[in-house]
Amino acid sequence: MSTRPSEERLPISEVQETPATVLTFDGGAPVSIIRAIPAEVPVGITYGDIPFAVMMATPSELEDFAVGFSLTEGVIQKAEDIRGIRVEREEQGLRLAIDLTPERLRTHLARRRALSGRTGCGLCGIGDLDALPQARSPVGEPPRLSLAAIRHALGMLEREQSLNARTHAVHAAVWADLEGTIRCVREDVGRHNALDKLIGALCRQGASPSAGFMIVTSRCSFELVEKVAAFGARTLVSISAPTSLALERARLLDITLVGIARHDSITVFHGVERIHRQDVLV
Amino acid sequence: MSTRPSEERLPISEVQETPATVLTFDGGAPVSIIRAIPAEVPVGITYGDIPFAVMMATPSELEDFAVGFSLTEGVIQKAEDIRGIRVEREEQGLRLAIDLTPERLRTHLARRRALSGRTGCGLCGIGDLDALPQARSPVGEPPRLSLAAIRHALGMLEREQSLNARTHAVHAAVWADLEGTIRCVREDVGRHNALDKLIGALCRQGASPSAGFMIVTSRCSFELVEKVAAFGARTLVSISAPTSLALERARLLDITLVGIARHDSITVFHGVERIHRQDVLV
Repeated sequence: MSTRPSEERLPISEVQETPATVLTFDGGAPVSIIRAIPAEVPVGITYGDIPFAVMMATPSELEDFAVGFSLTEGVIQKAEDIRGIRVEREEQGLRLAIDLTPERLRTHLARRRALSGRTGCGLCGIGDLDALPQARSPVGEPPRLSLAAIRHALGMLEREQSLNARTHAVHAAVWADLEGTIRCVREDVGRHNALDKLIGALCRQGASPSAGFMIVTSRCSFELVEKVAAFGARTLVSISAPTSLALERARLLDITLVGIARHDSITVFHGVERIHRQDVLV
Repeated sequence: MSTRPSEERLPISEVQETPATVLTFDGGAPVSIIRAIPAEVPVGITYGDIPFAVMMATPSELEDFAVGFSLTEGVIQKAEDIRGIRVEREEQGLRLAIDLTPERLRTHLARRRALSGRTGCGLCGIGDLDALPQARSPVGEPPRLSLAAIRHALGMLEREQSLNARTHAVHAAVWADLEGTIRCVREDVGRHNALDKLIGALCRQGASPSAGFMIVTSRCSFELVEKVAAFGARTLVSISAPTSLALERARLLDITLVGIARHDSITVFHGVERIHRQDVLV
């Protein structure tokens, strides 16, 4: 898979520094500061140069995003379905031009034609309730996981979020192995994007979906469960609580769903029998 | 504007109670609990019975949502452009059938035809960078606001979030008057939805956009600034930091933009000259 031109050469940073004024409620004098805020850039995604979607994203690791987004949107089934990715500067933002293999492009365009007539919004271009995504069937048993591994990964989480350390305003999606060692982190202003970037990075690295679990720092809506399933992973840990539909999908897909992950405890919403506790004090 | 059948009669709650298991890291025994989680339901929006969008939303105050969403999407210009709203139960979720005046429906369908051929995703059905929304021109001067009013509204915020008190997992959008008294609160699993519900409620009440300011408990991306401008308000306070594009739009639209709102301070990103401090200790 070729990538040209390198996004390193694109003059868009993932952080912007901006002047701001801090006003305190105790009557102190205003303080002028320079604050780092996360960049949010329109990224227009094309397949075969045909526009597909515009996503608002942090302009980093866009090749990972291209692969992960394409996979979780069902446009590709594996990283090799993409022949190349170009990141181009446009007047309004960035263009992420994804070059599919000829067979995959044909399939994509046929599916796209079947969807035309629907001008969609809000949920992946879906304008009609009947077009809601259907959960994919999971394969095999979800991995067993120790409580100690979850605790370890959660404990390491904050120091791995380099962009959030600067901006305090971005989401992270994290891949940890079954011992709880964090193996991959991706960040974005959008929580869906962060997870797509992570999934794309894992696909490109050839990571085995059964060799670890995912953590998201955001609230857990149903699309995040769907994305985890699209990658093939079976355990999702979220800092916040799941929505009703996220839990419904996790049950249907038999994905171990952990929420409200704190420094002292977690709450398990589905699959508690797969989290073993014997080594919790090790 | 008529509303039938009443959403009160629809058997969908904004909260679901679900069994879960708390596991503590100190080796204590698992604790079975019942946890309230926010409902997330697909809401299919139609105009003249033609599907427009599916939004994932908390099923409450859907008439407000219908009006606010229609306004911020540019489908209507005022609440009176809607003749009636029906909330209907469907197999997959809820249908929010919005009945426009004949002139407005004609305008909407003409605009919709102009957009067809684009299968959109991620940003209001927009598939192409050239179709990104353009900021509307603001009218008049943004209101001056006291630091004390902002402090007062922030101090009252938590006790006004009734759904979040139960679920700890939903966003709120709040309207406060220029004295800082909270006048309207709307909550949703989606931060865009919460703001659309608030704007719809204010339109239906005939609230003057210059008589107060908005607070969002979420991070502040550019769409939230656009929505505030679509309503005609000129001050937005967000608990988190703005994104780069949110700040760019706030400058362009001359909207007073406050971020990182804390118990002891706020950070003003645009329009600090309109926040007066003489009464901060009153």
